[in-house]
Amino acid sequence: MSYYQQHQAEFLEGLKTFLRIPSISTLSEHKPDIRRAAEFARNELQSAGMTNVELIEGKGNPLVYAEWLGAPGKPTILFYGHYDVQPPDPLDEWKSPPFEPEVRGDNIYARGAVDDKGQVYLQIKAVEGLMKTTGKLPVNVKFLLEGEEETGGEHIEAYVRSKPPRLQADAAVVCDTEMFAPEMPTICVGLRGMVYYELFVEGASHDLHSGVYGGAAPNPIQAIAEILCALKDREGHILIPGFYDRVIPPSVKEREAWASLPFDEKEYTEKEMGARELVGEPGVPLFERVWARPTLEVHGIRGGFTGEGAKTVIPARATAKISTRLVADQRPDEAADQLRAAVKAACPKGVIAEVKVLHSGAPSLTNPDNPFIHAAAAAMKEVFGRDTVYIRSGGSIPIVGVFDRYLGIPSVMMGFGLPDDNLHAPNEKFHLPNFYRGIEAVARYLEILGE
Amino acid sequence: MSYYQQHQAEFLEGLKTFLRIPSISTLSEHKPDIRRAAEFARNELQSAGMTNVELIEGKGNPLVYAEWLGAPGKPTILFYGHYDVQPPDPLDEWKSPPFEPEVRGDNIYARGAVDDKGQVYLQIKAVEGLMKTTGKLPVNVKFLLEGEEETGGEHIEAYVRSKPPRLQADAAVVCDTEMFAPEMPTICVGLRGMVYYELFVEGASHDLHSGVYGGAAPNPIQAIAEILCALKDREGHILIPGFYDRVIPPSVKEREAWASLPFDEKEYTEKEMGARELVGEPGVPLFERVWARPTLEVHGIRGGFTGEGAKTVIPARATAKISTRLVADQRPDEAADQLRAAVKAACPKGVIAEVKVLHSGAPSLTNPDNPFIHAAAAAMKEVFGRDTVYIRSGGSIPIVGVFDRYLGIPSVMMGFGLPDDNLHAPNEKFHLPNFYRGIEAVARYLEILGE
Repeated sequence: MSYYQQHQAEFLEGLKTFLRIPSISTLSEHKPDIRRAAEFARNELQSAGMTNVELIEGKGNPLVYAEWLGAPGKPTILFYGHYDVQPPDPLDEWKSPPFEPEVRGDNIYARGAVDDKGQVYLQIKAVEGLMKTTGKLPVNVKFLLEGEEETGGEHIEAYVRSKPPRLQADAAVVCDTEMFAPEMPTICVGLRGMVYYELFVEGASHDLHSGVYGGAAPNPIQAIAEILCALKDREGHILIPGFYDRVIPPSVKEREAWASLPFDEKEYTEKEMGARELVGEPGVPLFERVWARPTLEVHGIRGGFTGEGAKTVIPARATAKISTRLVADQRPDEAADQLRAAVKAACPKGVIAEVKVLHSGAPSLTNPDNPFIHAAAAAMKEVFGRDTVYIRSGGSIPIVGVFDRYLGIPSVMMGFGLPDDNLHAPNEKFHLPNFYRGIEAVARYLEILGE
Repeated sequence: MSYYQQHQAEFLEGLKTFLRIPSISTLSEHKPDIRRAAEFARNELQSAGMTNVELIEGKGNPLVYAEWLGAPGKPTILFYGHYDVQPPDPLDEWKSPPFEPEVRGDNIYARGAVDDKGQVYLQIKAVEGLMKTTGKLPVNVKFLLEGEEETGGEHIEAYVRSKPPRLQADAAVVCDTEMFAPEMPTICVGLRGMVYYELFVEGASHDLHSGVYGGAAPNPIQAIAEILCALKDREGHILIPGFYDRVIPPSVKEREAWASLPFDEKEYTEKEMGARELVGEPGVPLFERVWARPTLEVHGIRGGFTGEGAKTVIPARATAKISTRLVADQRPDEAADQLRAAVKAACPKGVIAEVKVLHSGAPSLTNPDNPFIHAAAAAMKEVFGRDTVYIRSGGSIPIVGVFDRYLGIPSVMMGFGLPDDNLHAPNEKFHLPNFYRGIEAVARYLEILGE
């Protein structure tokens, strides 16, 4: 029984402690929890034997930095992860409280279990294991963890943009993606970028009685509906002029590889998504729709009277949260300008519409033919006992584009999540066998790189 | 100085006491306040010298009944009003707390000031004044007050539908409308009806990550947007098949009278509504749009993440509150069926849409050539010193249709509100000179009827 197998109970307890901290970065009242989570990660890195461990303060939530540079001549790997989590609402849909981690069957349920605390923790435990069993690491290792991934990552982006010498590395390792299927080791080579917007629409200066003024008064909720319908049609085509111009279609090889992935549409639709049927651009295969096509989604909307019963008011204002997911080679600033222009053109009479960008990140597309990705594929194959597949992800990890642009290094996206892990949703979980194998795979990866 | 002028300070204090009771009928936690408001009205009727005063209990909020039948051979008038009020939100837009009445200038500010507690109270004070000064009333008088006007009025409708002998009367007097302009005594001869709906849309069974599933997952907020745009176009035309079929256009005489009403569009738009410009069906004059054309309005919408910051979720469900205002000769049940069919036809792929009717009421249109309306016009002319005008109202007072249908009596709509009284909105007010003149006008009305 290996070191990693012997210490599973301990790893699980440590992870639970990490998950109990409600480090929700989008809600300002959780600032103290953000700090607690950062300090927890710092202490863990310290115990793991890393050096120069510190919290990097700045505008926003602290970054956690650590390094171990005792392998001169060997490559340097920069581990990235985030200790912040999404808000847990709707709370009443959780089977166990989101910040009281509960193991049910082979899974641990909690907000942040897989996104991304579980995957941050497995990186640390991999390094700790190597240190404890061999007294050193096979390569040089740095850690840079952030606490704003779910809300835009401005602090880490500003920090990396300043190109601090201590961040020099040969490749980054990002454990924040998922496996294509259970037991199928996966490396992600493409991510969607995104721009997240708040749309604010105002009609009259105050709420108006719909009997007295209905027929004359502008209605900002109806206006948002008109704007949304002008931005995207019923079939899922985005109608924003110029929006698709820079979209690079997947290669024939990629399309063929995706078409041969094992996939049960009924299972995916009904069990994983809990949906009645799939929607989206007709004629575009599913994986292309979710990995290689941009989207426009409305995430939330609020306006007028939403309490119990009836109130006959024409509200003064309404707001919506919207995002556009972007694919290579779309540019966030350009996409935001295009959306703003389209909203302006679609805005009906009598109301004003304002668009505010909350955050944005570029899409990324990595060439899989590089030694850091090959080593990761080999390590995962060893631990999982199956060939590693290359996929893309529809999600956004803006740091990948940032590392590429400012540090000039590729990101190796080894992810251990599963498709039904309920990221950003109630009952988020992490499949514990993947948590344990993730620790081993990361450790094995460092060993292979050191050979 | 008349009795009514001598007692203004006392009337104001009594009104304030009534307004302090937050009798919000749409929020179930205010049930005790509803009862307190009903008991307040009962006690006031008692003190006014009415007999057989009682709360009529039933399914819903109590009705308040009172009678005085000491004028055999004279007509019988049934006063109607409601002691419940709309919710006060958005609270932060009130200049003084909604249930702490405050006099500023010539106005009293509070939720329910004019809709309808102030106008209920003035009826009671008119009767009380006649009793105190003459020891009797010039005609027979009955009161029937309800506590569910803002939430559908089911109790009163059921009660009236049962045609209790004690409700026999020659005409109803409804003080729940407004004057066309300050100093312009007004009788309302037409009301819009309405059907109030809740629209519920569901996509997946749980919230989904918009990165992972965006491009494949149905979005219920986008679906509501599509449904709203399918129900009404950008110009304000309702697109529901058959919806306009029964609409009776106003007569040439009515259109001419409306066109000659004094009206400052800039003042109405900018000052009264606080709007940038008027909207609605092109080519249809304003008064016709708000008095004689049906509308479809969305009153509230809610779905997904609406907190601070960003959450990249495709929500599982979203809801909206919608109403259709109806004009003669539209029928609520038929309109609801038409809307349901249109929602079904507009519902996009991947989601289900459910429509629930919360309440409904028929439109009404009264022939002004009857003695009860003539007497009211004369009484108002005397007290205000100007000719009384006949208008319609865009609002809905379902009881008017109910009295017509089950008691076979016309309703005389003498209203003392002003167009800028902020009904159903923050900073609702009652213009105090109208409150005082309203008391006198109602008293004078009863005297004229008794002559």
